Amino acid sequence: MKAFLAALLLATAAPALAGDPCCATGDLGLVVERATGSLLVIDRSDHAALGRIEGLGDLSHASLTYGPDEHFAYVFGRDGGLTKVDMLTRTIAKRIVQAGNSIGGAISDDGKLIAVSNYEPGGVKVFDADTLDPVADIPLNAKTIGLVDVPGRRFVWSTWDTGEAWMADFSGPEMVLTKLGDVGKNPFDAVLTDDAHTYLIGLFGEKGVTAIDLWDEDPEPVRFLKDYGKTEDDLPVYKMPHLQGWAFTEGQYVLPAVGQHELLWVDRTSLEEVGRTPMHGQPVFIIAQPGSPYVWVNFATPLNDTVQVVDSRSHEVVKTLTPGAAVLHMEFAPRGAEVWISARDDNRVMIYDTHSLKLTGEIAAESPSGIFFTARAHRTGL
Amino acid sequence: MKAFLAALLLATAAPALAGDPCCATGDLGLVVERATGSLLVIDRSDHAALGRIEGLGDLSHASLTYGPDEHFAYVFGRDGGLTKVDMLTRTIAKRIVQAGNSIGGAISDDGKLIAVSNYEPGGVKVFDADTLDPVADIPLNAKTIGLVDVPGRRFVWSTWDTGEAWMADFSGPEMVLTKLGDVGKNPFDAVLTDDAHTYLIGLFGEKGVTAIDLWDEDPEPVRFLKDYGKTEDDLPVYKMPHLQGWAFTEGQYVLPAVGQHELLWVDRTSLEEVGRTPMHGQPVFIIAQPGSPYVWVNFATPLNDTVQVVDSRSHEVVKTLTPGAAVLHMEFAPRGAEVWISARDDNRVMIYDTHSLKLTGEIAAESPSGIFFTARAHRTGL
Repeated sequence: MKAFLAALLLATAAPALAGDPCCATGDLGLVVERATGSLLVIDRSDHAALGRIEGLGDLSHASLTYGPDEHFAYVFGRDGGLTKVDMLTRTIAKRIVQAGNSIGGAISDDGKLIAVSNYEPGGVKVFDADTLDPVADIPLNAKTIGLVDVPGRRFVWSTWDTGEAWMADFSGPEMVLTKLGDVGKNPFDAVLTDDAHTYLIGLFGEKGVTAIDLWDEDPEPVRFLKDYGKTEDDLPVYKMPHLQGWAFTEGQYVLPAVGQHELLWVDRTSLEEVGRTPMHGQPVFIIAQPGSPYVWVNFATPLNDTVQVVDSRSHEVVKTLTPGAAVLHMEFAPRGAEVWISARDDNRVMIYDTHSLKLTGEIAAESPSGIFFTARAHRTGL
Repeated sequence: MKAFLAALLLATAAPALAGDPCCATGDLGLVVERATGSLLVIDRSDHAALGRIEGLGDLSHASLTYGPDEHFAYVFGRDGGLTKVDMLTRTIAKRIVQAGNSIGGAISDDGKLIAVSNYEPGGVKVFDADTLDPVADIPLNAKTIGLVDVPGRRFVWSTWDTGEAWMADFSGPEMVLTKLGDVGKNPFDAVLTDDAHTYLIGLFGEKGVTAIDLWDEDPEPVRFLKDYGKTEDDLPVYKMPHLQGWAFTEGQYVLPAVGQHELLWVDRTSLEEVGRTPMHGQPVFIIAQPGSPYVWVNFATPLNDTVQVVDSRSHEVVKTLTPGAAVLHMEFAPRGAEVWISARDDNRVMIYDTHSLKLTGEIAAESPSGIFFTARAHRTGL
């Protein structure tokens, strides 16, 4: 009996020891199902859905980030929920409601701290990534936008109400909070360049874009593109563009012209406009295909059944695709071989080979919006 | 009895279902132990060695790459061995000896093909990543160097004997082999820029560096830095620099001056030299710290106890460290928070916080050389 039990123990332990392929987390991902408050766990290599995690509250406009080992995702819900999701067991490890209305978050470079940006009551809250216990509360009496992680256990964000940029530094025993400067009226979103060098802030209340050099010892806000922004004469703005959707390619920033059917190309060094590309609609996300000259663009309603591919050398549209109804997001395999595109109103995620531009797979999902692969764990500023 | 067995099955299966943290692969890595032909499996978050994998043959000058899900590593040994290592079970999944002397390899962007670059008998061999079964054999009657993966199931390399660059394209039903051009006499190494745009080839037999624009429909080799290379008047060259150790930062290439105690800074667009930095010794690896203006440099024997940190804006050395005896390699956490440094003759891997430049950990290892984190699975051209 003992020998039998020992053999049985060995046999039942074997599947784990033999390495169930689902245990390797490098090609996993999550699709936000906004209508149902659920997440679909996906396997990139197999073009497969592995399971669904439910009970995440209001996931309209939700985003998420991953811990360094890809074991846990941290999901920022519109209802102020912060949910820690276990990618291996596909369950909720912990969930707190930390504010009334949150709009995104970030994880520190060492993976130990989660910062959340809030509209209601405003401010930034910081939590322990392991326990979700509170670490810091920075109210600032303002709605916060454009929260990003910066190397050295730091976070940077901007304030809608007061037009300021701030940095919180957690590298020492006490948090150090620094105002980086006045950046302009009503910042609506901000983004960090891929080298963590420049923090770029879009303004709703006045024209222009503000850049802050985060490598500088004493950074100063610099205004550029002084005609950039919303005007009454423009087309109606169906959706404010995501700055997280600005692409960085070929020494350029690529931005959506607010309210226009156009991309703007800006030289990264001179901050001068170097070109414009007429597009199918109002651009929402502009995302660089890794290892290529191409950026992929989706559009605001009602022209949101289309995706266009633009060459960053010629600034010309090289391909127009119609993946489905209400294209909300695009996520590239980290080395650029594939792009996954969510078509919300078709309840599908469409997978394209970026080399052939052929459809190679599709996955059923409930009103899919954001798609997030675990490889994001290894990138700064997301 | 049946109920007892069922309970036991459940209990023994539970550890795997509950998600053993070691199952998440995002923060794992391998350290090459060159003298003993073994690999040390490391956990980046825990600053820990998890186990040792033995029996990999001659690992002097070995390199490795990871599959997209981080489940398997592919190790290229100097003895022509190609070994597939299971990161979850920490065992050898398969091993073949595919040549007499191999010098490196690469994995296709879809993770399906492994290409190996050989000195003896020369040429490139391509294998199925799953089975290690042969897929293609491209002898070319030449030793091959600088093999890199390029998006679209493609590989590029150069030939030592004949001074050519070649591309093999596996995106269609049949492999398409294309000569990219004559690149100069005796290429000794080559490297791909981080955006997969430019393939840079160092020459041993004549002066200069050759660049090939891989985004061009009809790429042409272009020679630049026409005084770059080995001359009889220079200091003796203790070790030819690794081109895989060229860094790309702040719109510049950073190269070791061959045989000199100097770094060269080259403008990425104009291909003109823009600066030189006097260094402690002959640079071997020059590696950009992610999300920062800094590059880290190690040196050839006999000055190889030292690492220097250089600011890519001022081109000045900002810090000199002495991590240990015979520093062979440096690997950054993918978001730059830490650097792991192998000190071969101290039998240790030293871990530094890049923000404070303080030693935060060390790990015992047998004659450690290359350090490879699984996050490399998500980068092109390694």
